[in-house]
Amino acid sequence: MSTPYLYHSQTTDGVTAHADCLHIELLTEDLPFERVLLRHEPDNEEYLIDMVSGEKKGRLRVWQAILPLSQDKSVTYYTFKAILGQAQYWLDGRGVQVRMPGREYHFKYNRVARPPEWVSEQVFYQIFPERFCNGDPSIGVEDGEYQYLGKNRQSVKRSWGEPVGQHGNTGAVEFYGGDLAGVQQKLDYLQALGITTLYLNPIFTSYSNHKYDTVDYYSIDPKFGTNQQFATLSEDIHQRGMKIVLDAVLNHTSTEHAWFDKSQTRNGAYGSVNSPYRDYYFFKGQNDEGSDSLVYVGWKGIDTLPVLNFNNKQVRDAIYQSEDSVIKHWLKPPYLIDGWRFDVIHMLGEGEGAANNAHYVTAFREAMKSVSPDSYMLGEHFFEATSWLQGDQEDGSMNYYGFAHPVRALLASKDIQFDPIELDCRDFLAWLREASAKLPWANQLSQLNQLDSHDTERLLTTLQGDVDRFKIAAQLLMTYVGAPCLYYGTEVGLKGSHDPDNRRCFPWDRMENNEWLEYFTKLIAARRQLPALQKGSFVPLWVEAGGLIYAREFKGNVVISGFNLSDTPMTVSLPLWKIAANCEGLRCWWTKTPCDIDADTLTVEVKGKASILLFNG
Amino acid sequence: MSTPYLYHSQTTDGVTAHADCLHIELLTEDLPFERVLLRHEPDNEEYLIDMVSGEKKGRLRVWQAILPLSQDKSVTYYTFKAILGQAQYWLDGRGVQVRMPGREYHFKYNRVARPPEWVSEQVFYQIFPERFCNGDPSIGVEDGEYQYLGKNRQSVKRSWGEPVGQHGNTGAVEFYGGDLAGVQQKLDYLQALGITTLYLNPIFTSYSNHKYDTVDYYSIDPKFGTNQQFATLSEDIHQRGMKIVLDAVLNHTSTEHAWFDKSQTRNGAYGSVNSPYRDYYFFKGQNDEGSDSLVYVGWKGIDTLPVLNFNNKQVRDAIYQSEDSVIKHWLKPPYLIDGWRFDVIHMLGEGEGAANNAHYVTAFREAMKSVSPDSYMLGEHFFEATSWLQGDQEDGSMNYYGFAHPVRALLASKDIQFDPIELDCRDFLAWLREASAKLPWANQLSQLNQLDSHDTERLLTTLQGDVDRFKIAAQLLMTYVGAPCLYYGTEVGLKGSHDPDNRRCFPWDRMENNEWLEYFTKLIAARRQLPALQKGSFVPLWVEAGGLIYAREFKGNVVISGFNLSDTPMTVSLPLWKIAANCEGLRCWWTKTPCDIDADTLTVEVKGKASILLFNG
Repeated sequence: MSTPYLYHSQTTDGVTAHADCLHIELLTEDLPFERVLLRHEPDNEEYLIDMVSGEKKGRLRVWQAILPLSQDKSVTYYTFKAILGQAQYWLDGRGVQVRMPGREYHFKYNRVARPPEWVSEQVFYQIFPERFCNGDPSIGVEDGEYQYLGKNRQSVKRSWGEPVGQHGNTGAVEFYGGDLAGVQQKLDYLQALGITTLYLNPIFTSYSNHKYDTVDYYSIDPKFGTNQQFATLSEDIHQRGMKIVLDAVLNHTSTEHAWFDKSQTRNGAYGSVNSPYRDYYFFKGQNDEGSDSLVYVGWKGIDTLPVLNFNNKQVRDAIYQSEDSVIKHWLKPPYLIDGWRFDVIHMLGEGEGAANNAHYVTAFREAMKSVSPDSYMLGEHFFEATSWLQGDQEDGSMNYYGFAHPVRALLASKDIQFDPIELDCRDFLAWLREASAKLPWANQLSQLNQLDSHDTERLLTTLQGDVDRFKIAAQLLMTYVGAPCLYYGTEVGLKGSHDPDNRRCFPWDRMENNEWLEYFTKLIAARRQLPALQKGSFVPLWVEAGGLIYAREFKGNVVISGFNLSDTPMTVSLPLWKIAANCEGLRCWWTKTPCDIDADTLTVEVKGKASILLFNG
Repeated sequence: MSTPYLYHSQTTDGVTAHADCLHIELLTEDLPFERVLLRHEPDNEEYLIDMVSGEKKGRLRVWQAILPLSQDKSVTYYTFKAILGQAQYWLDGRGVQVRMPGREYHFKYNRVARPPEWVSEQVFYQIFPERFCNGDPSIGVEDGEYQYLGKNRQSVKRSWGEPVGQHGNTGAVEFYGGDLAGVQQKLDYLQALGITTLYLNPIFTSYSNHKYDTVDYYSIDPKFGTNQQFATLSEDIHQRGMKIVLDAVLNHTSTEHAWFDKSQTRNGAYGSVNSPYRDYYFFKGQNDEGSDSLVYVGWKGIDTLPVLNFNNKQVRDAIYQSEDSVIKHWLKPPYLIDGWRFDVIHMLGEGEGAANNAHYVTAFREAMKSVSPDSYMLGEHFFEATSWLQGDQEDGSMNYYGFAHPVRALLASKDIQFDPIELDCRDFLAWLREASAKLPWANQLSQLNQLDSHDTERLLTTLQGDVDRFKIAAQLLMTYVGAPCLYYGTEVGLKGSHDPDNRRCFPWDRMENNEWLEYFTKLIAARRQLPALQKGSFVPLWVEAGGLIYAREFKGNVVISGFNLSDTPMTVSLPLWKIAANCEGLRCWWTKTPCDIDADTLTVEVKGKASILLFNG
């Protein structure tokens, strides 16, 4: 007997939330099941609830049950078990299994901590401010104005568009003049592109161009603008119905931060045993009486980035606990930012490792939500972030693990370390599903998906300019579960190898008749117009080694997206009945040509190295 | 290119422990790898260590690296990445993968919490004392001696061997007279069988025959014997070089426990708002002033089993914290038990659910180890117990999830709820490997594997008397990773359906020329004689839908075990080179017939519905 089809939409189509229970709906092929059961663990023990069969939706039978929410923990786990003939089938977050799945893949619902609804409705745009637009040439960094980190590396002033990193080890000290005024000037452009939320790399005072070594958490870098200017920018953004997220680098500071004070002018921690800030950092032998060690813990051993000691109440107060702590300060008027992206948040804690990390990350969340309950808590994780994404810690993460890495592996045959990797579309789909199945649905929707960032090679470069594959990647970005985020310049085909080449100046001289810009504008329009892409379930319809097609569905809106990686066209029959929605009116997003649907099945031809994008409504 | 073979033994053959690092060895096929890397996450971030290639072991190349142990948490995660041509291969606890595996499958090493070494060397024997042997007929329960639970169910006295549960709902109140004197009398028998550790179902005072509703944690049930008699039994057991584990039922008590006092004669919690024990349990509206509620939380809603409130310091003191707490009391002289099996330990906590369960389980562990560092902490879990088995909580669990369930599913086509399940040997192997890969190796070795117990139908009955399959199951029990535990009577072919029929009297009249007894005695001898079975790595050599053969290896001792489920003989070529050990001298355990090995490959014929068991040394 072939495996029966079981389908559970985790959207409001399949889950209706009440105060202490969920109304759960499961759809199955209309087969003579002995029993269909909903399994959960209210007190860590298995309980099986008989589901009641009801009406049919197309070919599928609806089964329903009331699931009590676990009261002893915030996350309720559940999964489905169906008995058919001499076999049993389970449905978990990945799909149908022949035996009970491991707990990590059970469906999850967090009754306490919910990410903001608005996140998945956004199209994000990541700006590296120093390279986006120079709106105020009067405030740029001059040649030699900064001595960087006592290493005799002086700041270098460059002209807009000059190649980056061409003159020796100048990655962190060359300046092109991008600033907040530049961002302000380009808001019209970004709105026209369809962007709704900006995420800015760090903008607080710092002597590097990337500003991941903060000198002062309370001031906008004067070369970017003023605090007042930022308040005005934020107000303008909000008046446009847009949002803004800032980058918080709280694991470590600059050695020039007053707390650390490597230049030893202000009684900071470095070289001053009696400094009130001595315990803000980790000095070797700190607890030995009279220790005057100059040896301290730097992030990843880098001595320009001394790591903050969260075991110290003063640090906790300064960073998140007091009313004017860094985290709360910028969420309040007049700045009113909509969220924080936390740099290397998984690495902070007590001591050299990340001891008690979960405690501090949870505390960061509580601090944020106490000031702005609807703010977005976004964590940076380069690898698997499952444990941070169960709801109680982060709303979403920079989704390298569950999106950027598999996309890069599939399309560029490279992993994030530039090592070769061989993956076919089946492996790719399994990777996506495993990564997502481990998270509550609300957190899946709140992941920040990117093709690339300031920390990776730009994907178009990794793809060696293969425009077909890049288009497939872009469509994946806009149609997959999670909020899409474009790294500035992607929309005009900006290339760049790894850091610092991935931080080139935005090519404002390249805008006219730019085909990429047109392509991205239309693709973003689909994302914004079609609720299925923002909140819809994910239903694989067809996968082979060389191609993948999936549907997304939300309240009757259906989108079908997919691609053929091979060089030759493929004709594929899609079982639309699996979506359990009315697919009449399905048509091509680009040409608006209607589809010819025959008895719940759609036969489509997908050209070689090409995508399809269909929608209804 | 076919997937290259990668092998990591987690035994001391492949992992040498030092104070703050591990010396790690990986074996690979001798192929032109670009690089072989050891991946770990010392501060939650990925670090890749280049492994150094060394000598060859047979066909395999040895790679080595030093792995620093994570200092910010007790468990160090690691996995291997090998670059070969245009592909990459990862090795995790399950086997070789084509992409980075999810974190749950990385290898794990707990530097802090180590299970006792002795556990995996044991052959356990579970005794349900009321049914094992009546050694002292003078102390049996008489007809009508107990009123059970106020339900007008009176105790019934039965004759040894009479069918159980035949007279209405008498499961808990019929008594056959088994006792400690009976256990004592049979120690010679058990030693001859090869048993080394006894695990007794509850023996503290209680009015049911199963005694999972404790009335007094400090007294041996008088119908079983006296405290002094138990001390003597324990001493005798230890003098024989054997060990003993008791059953602790600490999630709930009997309603007749003095703390609860349902009969309302001793100012217990029930019906007495001012009782000093009121807060030992959960009464509805407990925190409302003057509440005199008689409604309380019972385990799984059962009103005869009121749940203890661990949020109450007095309960914590009584159960595990004070010097004479229940947990510590029996670990001390004169009783000196070697371990506790904790009933439904995952369900205890604060309130109706299991809030803060991990905290209390960890505290139980600390209490045990503070008195007896080498004692065995065994948790009962009917389903997945991964989170309790990372080292810091339990040493091992009753391994239903990773052993009894898959064995039952494969051989009887039934799951533990008696629902049908279809599983072939590939699914079975995947299940075993997934379940085990999630645990540190030391905890895998310390799992308690069983075919059945007082809570399941006896497997021979589930198998409908299929002796071939039962023999296969028994061999799996004795050759798989983890400590084997026989449920009393299994060794003489005792049958029994579900509770209470799985608790029949031991058939002492059936011992002569019992073929099962001979079979089990020889099988147990293999387990005890061959270190590979106690501590060896697990290396699958061959799997198909209808059969599975694996090796276990430890310091040169090799065992090969497997079976053919089909009705027809199979001829199989086994790649002995994968074990990386000298396999000369391999021979059959039963016949001692030597094997004919040809160039690292062994060709064996496995008869239909039969096993093979080969060993060297």
